[in-house]
Amino acid sequence: MNDIRGIVGDAACRSGADAARYFEDPRGSFTGRDCLVVLPETTAQVSQIVRLCNANGIAIIPYGGGTGVVAGQLSLDSNDAIILSLERMNRVRSVSPDDFVMVAEAGCVLENIHAEAERHDLMFPLSMASKGSCTIGGNLATNAGGIQVLRHGNARDLCLGIEAVMPSGEVLEELSPLRKNNTGYDLRHLLIGSEGTLGIITAASLMLKPRDPEAVTAFCAITSPADALRTLRALRRAIGNRMNGMELMSGFGVGLVCRHFPTLRKPFAGDHDWYLLIDTAGNRGLRDETEAALADCIEQGFVIDVVMAESEAQRDALWTLREHTPEANHRTGAFCSSDTAVPIGQIDAFVSRTHAAVTAVHQGLRTNSYGHIGDGNIHHNVFPPERTSKSDFLQAHPGIANRVREAINEATLSLGGSISAEHGIGRLKRNDLKKHASASKMTVLRQIKQAIDPNNIMNPGALLD
Amino acid sequence: MNDIRGIVGDAACRSGADAARYFEDPRGSFTGRDCLVVLPETTAQVSQIVRLCNANGIAIIPYGGGTGVVAGQLSLDSNDAIILSLERMNRVRSVSPDDFVMVAEAGCVLENIHAEAERHDLMFPLSMASKGSCTIGGNLATNAGGIQVLRHGNARDLCLGIEAVMPSGEVLEELSPLRKNNTGYDLRHLLIGSEGTLGIITAASLMLKPRDPEAVTAFCAITSPADALRTLRALRRAIGNRMNGMELMSGFGVGLVCRHFPTLRKPFAGDHDWYLLIDTAGNRGLRDETEAALADCIEQGFVIDVVMAESEAQRDALWTLREHTPEANHRTGAFCSSDTAVPIGQIDAFVSRTHAAVTAVHQGLRTNSYGHIGDGNIHHNVFPPERTSKSDFLQAHPGIANRVREAINEATLSLGGSISAEHGIGRLKRNDLKKHASASKMTVLRQIKQAIDPNNIMNPGALLD
Repeated sequence: MNDIRGIVGDAACRSGADAARYFEDPRGSFTGRDCLVVLPETTAQVSQIVRLCNANGIAIIPYGGGTGVVAGQLSLDSNDAIILSLERMNRVRSVSPDDFVMVAEAGCVLENIHAEAERHDLMFPLSMASKGSCTIGGNLATNAGGIQVLRHGNARDLCLGIEAVMPSGEVLEELSPLRKNNTGYDLRHLLIGSEGTLGIITAASLMLKPRDPEAVTAFCAITSPADALRTLRALRRAIGNRMNGMELMSGFGVGLVCRHFPTLRKPFAGDHDWYLLIDTAGNRGLRDETEAALADCIEQGFVIDVVMAESEAQRDALWTLREHTPEANHRTGAFCSSDTAVPIGQIDAFVSRTHAAVTAVHQGLRTNSYGHIGDGNIHHNVFPPERTSKSDFLQAHPGIANRVREAINEATLSLGGSISAEHGIGRLKRNDLKKHASASKMTVLRQIKQAIDPNNIMNPGALLD
Repeated sequence: MNDIRGIVGDAACRSGADAARYFEDPRGSFTGRDCLVVLPETTAQVSQIVRLCNANGIAIIPYGGGTGVVAGQLSLDSNDAIILSLERMNRVRSVSPDDFVMVAEAGCVLENIHAEAERHDLMFPLSMASKGSCTIGGNLATNAGGIQVLRHGNARDLCLGIEAVMPSGEVLEELSPLRKNNTGYDLRHLLIGSEGTLGIITAASLMLKPRDPEAVTAFCAITSPADALRTLRALRRAIGNRMNGMELMSGFGVGLVCRHFPTLRKPFAGDHDWYLLIDTAGNRGLRDETEAALADCIEQGFVIDVVMAESEAQRDALWTLREHTPEANHRTGAFCSSDTAVPIGQIDAFVSRTHAAVTAVHQGLRTNSYGHIGDGNIHHNVFPPERTSKSDFLQAHPGIANRVREAINEATLSLGGSISAEHGIGRLKRNDLKKHASASKMTVLRQIKQAIDPNNIMNPGALLD
């Protein structure tokens, strides 16, 4: 460990109380073991550290913004481990407007990348509630999704190349800005989403896009997830490739947000069972087209009422309701948060089947279902019965969180869905993956891990055991 | 080999004269060795064949539409090999309009996939000149690019999941239609672009898109690649995410097309040094926006003249000039065809530097440069001097084709480009990859190949030696 301190200097090392925040889980479900936290400033330093760890069998846990919710960045498994935080590698190395490419280091905070793109009158479309603290390195390591996947894809779809330090310490320099580059297996896509288990992404070539002249946000009151699906179908026909995202929110969930954040206001006077938050972006005139399409949905009975944002401030106010949902769930005592996706056509069955499965585990459990309906990615948050605290409830019902998680997984899989849509596997779902993935898939995952990281130093215990 | 015949039946096997077309190269540069050609009809049959070959050390060369130009589908290396053609696995298994997904078997011809998508009022945007004979399996195995990459990406960007037979014979079933599915390393992207060296893709979940209400095609006369770049910049600002593609064509190349296909007509009365073929697609009114943007380019002096297609027939006529270019090059005696890409801002330097490098190899050589300028992917075709036949010239100058290829590669790499943009490595560029890829990259490529295909039965000699 002293050799590692020698590489970066004592000022770039943390431990004990000084490092406490690196051992915390954003949902408060886990606490990592105390270990050395190292903050390198260059790719060369990362390479030196990795070489040293590989030679000495020291595990490395890469750390981005610490916003991951599946314990992928926590030191739970290993006694002999360091956390390697990329936070000081936060430079934008270059922007090429001709190529619509920005080369950014792993520690860049997502919101700063948005701002840098805007300085060049371009945009980087990856976005999510944690954008103010998550880093692009973490986004790529976990293939983060977020709110604009419908149109722009996940993190991997917005990355043209990476620089990474492999478990041997060798630097893989594949930062090409090219849109077409078929020269061997796509190591970029192998490392993206590998959750730090095959190497450490130190920088990336990010795909920028032209900014759209018009962006439209609408909030709709609806009756059911089935009507949400009908509205989605109608809008994808009318608005086509200009649909940016579509979020489903339950009336129950919006109520929780307004209870815990009393300054926030509901968009409608009355209460409704379900809501849709809709973003479109494109040509001038799109606002009128979106409004007409939604009027048509009202006419057909899919939508009860619509509020269109008239300003950036109104747009933010509508999105704030959505973005405060995770925190409202947390404060309400959520003890289980699913990150599951199903084929779009199954959304309605997904919500009802999950609610039934949760209630079957324990009568009185409450579920808030919300999320990216345009991607089939609904998050289910489960709370104890009314007037029961989370800690009391969990103590009285040992193992119930696992039983609920498994019930949701079963409902998801019965509809052809995925047990990890956008958050990844980490340490939380490692056993779920092993249980539900096919044997042939697990074989190939292990072959790759063994071939690239034979000493199992890269984030051991994440994704695979 | 008799055991293999037993799996599929004699009627599904070819050899000798009966199989001659499987040993041909579309550019006539190579001839494969005579070997058994097997045409399985199901994934289960493919699995049985692979198991048998793996146990007996028989090499398998997967075969799609036979349109590959880097000898990836040719039996050049191995004495003990079979060609496995997916052509009878050509069913569309399902279409889900809600999910915008089609599940198609590997042997489906690309044009048939387009037609099937249109039957559901949707589109599959991957397109290229060989669409009438190339198959989706081959498109994915090579990560094909084509003419709409600017907006819709390469083959891999339009694929949500795959079914593949691994070298062990195990079937990897990852056909999920989900847009978000973070469950382990992305084996889909590992197999896509692996050129049949890690497994055989037998089916894929393809991402469909809404059809755009308006599609616009324009043909522009310009002075230079530098003006092409200026026009691209102006259009990407004005048209933004609705730019479908942009093709650069040289006046020399358009002349060759019209000479070899006398029924085709040039769009302008006079001759020009360079041309641009531009496709946009999106909202109603886009035609006017495109026309206005091009008028602005004329005003600024980037563009000399513009023809806008007024009908589907005119659109086809303009694209026909572009699509006949490969055949015109062939008939003119092209002995070297590059598939190189550079960062967009380097396009002008790329064309002039390449032409100089080619002339430096041999005075009098002629070069036709054309291709996907929106992706930086310009193809250079090199011909013998005027009034010299290809065969005479190559006989008189042994090794010159290699020297020209290397000169183009060097020019490409000096500008930060890729020696294989969209065609892949195959057997033709295997040594180029080894020469120009970094040692750290080659190490990882070999680690993966060794781990997944330890007996080296999957397309040995392609991509890696």
